[in-house]
Amino acid sequence: MIKVVIAGIRGRMGKTAFEAIQATEGMEVVAAYDYKHEGKQFDGADVVETGGIPFYSSMDQLVQETTPDVFFDVTRPNVVFENVMEALKHQLHIVVGTSGLTEASLDQIRAQAEQYNKNVIIAPNFSIGAVLMMKFSQMAAKFMPDIEIIEMHHNQKVDAPSGTATKTAQLIQEVREPHTQGALGEVEDLKGARGADIEGMKIHSVRLHGLLAHQQVLFGSAGELLTIRHDSFDRESFKQGIVLSVERVLEVDQFVYGLEQILLQD
Amino acid sequence: MIKVVIAGIRGRMGKTAFEAIQATEGMEVVAAYDYKHEGKQFDGADVVETGGIPFYSSMDQLVQETTPDVFFDVTRPNVVFENVMEALKHQLHIVVGTSGLTEASLDQIRAQAEQYNKNVIIAPNFSIGAVLMMKFSQMAAKFMPDIEIIEMHHNQKVDAPSGTATKTAQLIQEVREPHTQGALGEVEDLKGARGADIEGMKIHSVRLHGLLAHQQVLFGSAGELLTIRHDSFDRESFKQGIVLSVERVLEVDQFVYGLEQILLQD
Amino acid sequence: MIKVVIAGIRGRMGKTAFEAIQATEGMEVVAAYDYKHEGKQFDGADVVETGGIPFYSSMDQLVQETTPDVFFDVTRPNVVFENVMEALKHQLHIVVGTSGLTEASLDQIRAQAEQYNKNVIIAPNFSIGAVLMMKFSQMAAKFMPDIEIIEMHHNQKVDAPSGTATKTAQLIQEVREPHTQGALGEVEDLKGARGADIEGMKIHSVRLHGLLAHQQVLFGSAGELLTIRHDSFDRESFKQGIVLSVERVLEVDQFVYGLEQILLQD
Amino acid sequence: MIKVVIAGIRGRMGKTAFEAIQATEGMEVVAAYDYKHEGKQFDGADVVETGGIPFYSSMDQLVQETTPDVFFDVTRPNVVFENVMEALKHQLHIVVGTSGLTEASLDQIRAQAEQYNKNVIIAPNFSIGAVLMMKFSQMAAKFMPDIEIIEMHHNQKVDAPSGTATKTAQLIQEVREPHTQGALGEVEDLKGARGADIEGMKIHSVRLHGLLAHQQVLFGSAGELLTIRHDSFDRESFKQGIVLSVERVLEVDQFVYGLEQILLQD
Repeated sequence: MIKVVIAGIRGRMGKTAFEAIQATEGMEVVAAYDYKHEGKQFDGADVVETGGIPFYSSMDQLVQETTPDVFFDVTRPNVVFENVMEALKHQLHIVVGTSGLTEASLDQIRAQAEQYNKNVIIAPNFSIGAVLMMKFSQMAAKFMPDIEIIEMHHNQKVDAPSGTATKTAQLIQEVREPHTQGALGEVEDLKGARGADIEGMKIHSVRLHGLLAHQQVLFGSAGELLTIRHDSFDRESFKQGIVLSVERVLEVDQFVYGLEQILLQD
Repeated sequence: MIKVVIAGIRGRMGKTAFEAIQATEGMEVVAAYDYKHEGKQFDGADVVETGGIPFYSSMDQLVQETTPDVFFDVTRPNVVFENVMEALKHQLHIVVGTSGLTEASLDQIRAQAEQYNKNVIIAPNFSIGAVLMMKFSQMAAKFMPDIEIIEMHHNQKVDAPSGTATKTAQLIQEVREPHTQGALGEVEDLKGARGADIEGMKIHSVRLHGLLAHQQVLFGSAGELLTIRHDSFDRESFKQGIVLSVERVLEVDQFVYGLEQILLQD
Repeated sequence: MIKVVIAGIRGRMGKTAFEAIQATEGMEVVAAYDYKHEGKQFDGADVVETGGIPFYSSMDQLVQETTPDVFFDVTRPNVVFENVMEALKHQLHIVVGTSGLTEASLDQIRAQAEQYNKNVIIAPNFSIGAVLMMKFSQMAAKFMPDIEIIEMHHNQKVDAPSGTATKTAQLIQEVREPHTQGALGEVEDLKGARGADIEGMKIHSVRLHGLLAHQQVLFGSAGELLTIRHDSFDRESFKQGIVLSVERVLEVDQFVYGLEQILLQD
Repeated sequence: MIKVVIAGIRGRMGKTAFEAIQATEGMEVVAAYDYKHEGKQFDGADVVETGGIPFYSSMDQLVQETTPDVFFDVTRPNVVFENVMEALKHQLHIVVGTSGLTEASLDQIRAQAEQYNKNVIIAPNFSIGAVLMMKFSQMAAKFMPDIEIIEMHHNQKVDAPSGTATKTAQLIQEVREPHTQGALGEVEDLKGARGADIEGMKIHSVRLHGLLAHQQVLFGSAGELLTIRHDSFDRESFKQGIVLSVERVLEVDQFVYGLEQILLQD
């Protein structure tokens, strides 16, 4: 039985993680690490008096009383760093589901993991489909470097392009030489028609009522088109990646950044 | 047998029209009307001495010697107007496959058609699939007015958005109240991400090596998405519309603008 | 204020209708017609003692006490017929959101509506996007009669093809001459590869974990492809059609079958 | 300068290879190996007397007179084997673009390559987009094993499913445990609706007038869908893979089966 403590359990991702882990044979959530609600419990939805798993604000006490194996953190970047450094000291393996940690923080975490000989998986995205889309896009970009990204989201999304589109573009940038795409002397008769530009690559952001979260990456080459598309319909999509991370963190080689490292090494 | 004269036969659309009409039972091309090559003939590909259909630069002579029923014009806007006015005088029904005629010219053609009691079909687009896409888009826009257009073409296309996208947007504008789409306070972190704007409607132009001509019109509404997509792979796609126009011009009610008038009235 | 009574309010569609109508200015739900719960009330989610709209099992009493304008029925086919006949006698306009009424029942309802000079809208599908997809498919089929339907649903759906796919095919059959599609001497090296056959038209049913409800209708023609696609993400998609039906039933011409009659006449 | 001899130059793929290699700096076609046309030449389209590259039916003479580096074979399986065995004896590196070689033949070629210390690339598909689609599909299948393939081709294609779909399914089978997909007690109300079955995986073959060659592989998982799609519009799509194979055969590690080995190792 893999015993897991969750930090950030009251947030949406924390609840999803709780559900995923509790529903999986061979793993269970034994505690919530939280600066609030010491002495209370969490029942999957709400903070309750009894009948759930206990909240702790002291890591010492938490570890002593519940003897967990894995510290699973989905709090915010500023909180997650201190949590993780502390949990490593307490001899826990680490899964982090938060994006936004600085390079410096990641380096310190890596060093701490080495010192305490524990494993860390940093997974900014738990959706296996999304991670595969991004990784395949990077792999395809080497041989099909003319690329446009179309991401489509519901019309309540304020920022454009989406974080996933930006991340995809960054991964592609690592392998693609910057170059202008499109016709020589291309003209936009209506401003913005050709989308946002990243080193010649284009990103188009669609926002429509009714949409959920969708992205396609298009690779054009002489006589052919390759399209890698991901549709995200529901938070359920995170569960497989959550469970996989908890399973694999016991056996990975100390420090892993990105679920793709696990998905593609097998 | 419907006897057709083609103006603009040496161009790509003219050749396509020639092939389409010659391949159809019940119709044939009897002459080419051209300011050049009087006395020569056209064999489907080249100007030849014999073995094709004759070129004429005199409408009088052409009509006398070949007694056509339909004058089919795919020359340029400045040429097509004079051609058509002249052909109506010679008692021919008219099919025009050229876009770009002014309102004034169209009015004069309509008047001339009435005077000579002949029929005219103006078909700026002979692709039945493209025409249906545009017309359906207009029909859907009344009830699903949150719309984005994604058009995708080969990377040699200089202008963006495409003519078809612009035309689609215009048809939609006729029935859609202008309104802002997307989130209140929407922010483009990368300029152009949200595409070109037409009264709140967005157009995105993808240009990639290998692509041909593709367009999708997306209609978002609470909990659902309607997509109307057209892929144009080949000039063959014009033939059905060409043949349909030649057939129907004998029976339509004098002046028809746009193939959709024929397609949707049946 | 349009006053509406709902039959079938405890079902999922009934609740959706309740929400939609209550959220719309100018209309309200005044009563639930139900064989159960006389004297109780409905608060949008549950049967309650007070604070909701009242249940009635007597139409006489219901009409006397709440003076509704429209009877909105989403019960099952066997129940809906009697309900509607009775409601017409009580001088109510009718909206029916149930499919599966027999031709004979529909004829009797139509006659009853004439006799009492009330209007009836039968709407087997309230999703405007789905209705447009079906109707456009029928319209396109006249000119592009080579058609395949790909419908995609979650992997809990037991039947294949889906009701919407079958309905789409029926609408197309009304205008398409039966004919064999595909190559002469076509061979299925794996049985079922070419899908289900309806007069030469093919239907393919995809069932995958994670999917919701999606359908695309493909029209192939020389050099081009037209695709009409509908994605249904959420029951929210029914609300616009529900509200539209309640609004329009006051003014339509007595008997209307299918939301498309309203959508395309405007 | 890489000097290439082509076997099968008069076929469509041979001509495409000729064009691709001649258009690439640093490589050139120096001869055609053919049982016919000894003494004649090939000019890119036709067999001519002069002004092209020479035909040879003797490998000895060919090698002596033109000193090639690479033997590029796109003849049929029965011919290709003998050609390749002979060419290895003459100290040429080998690129084979033919599918259908038996395991036994491949083993013999591999042994011959080792003996003569030459390299061999067997590339049953030169389209980089198609190869990536297949390989990515295999990689995704490990983590998203609920899969359906929709392949779409023009209506002159006699066999279904397509070779590419079958090959994709085979690659997936190597990593996917056979299991039933879809609902328990699934019912086909119309036979064939659920497509062809390969160990629970489904394949749907669309055949429509106007289509070219398209395939999408769908991976469904809780709350999400991953789609990998390839559209092949034109034989131009083979050129990049042809040129890449000729370049890399000089440096690869003796025996490579499938372009994916080259694409994904980098």
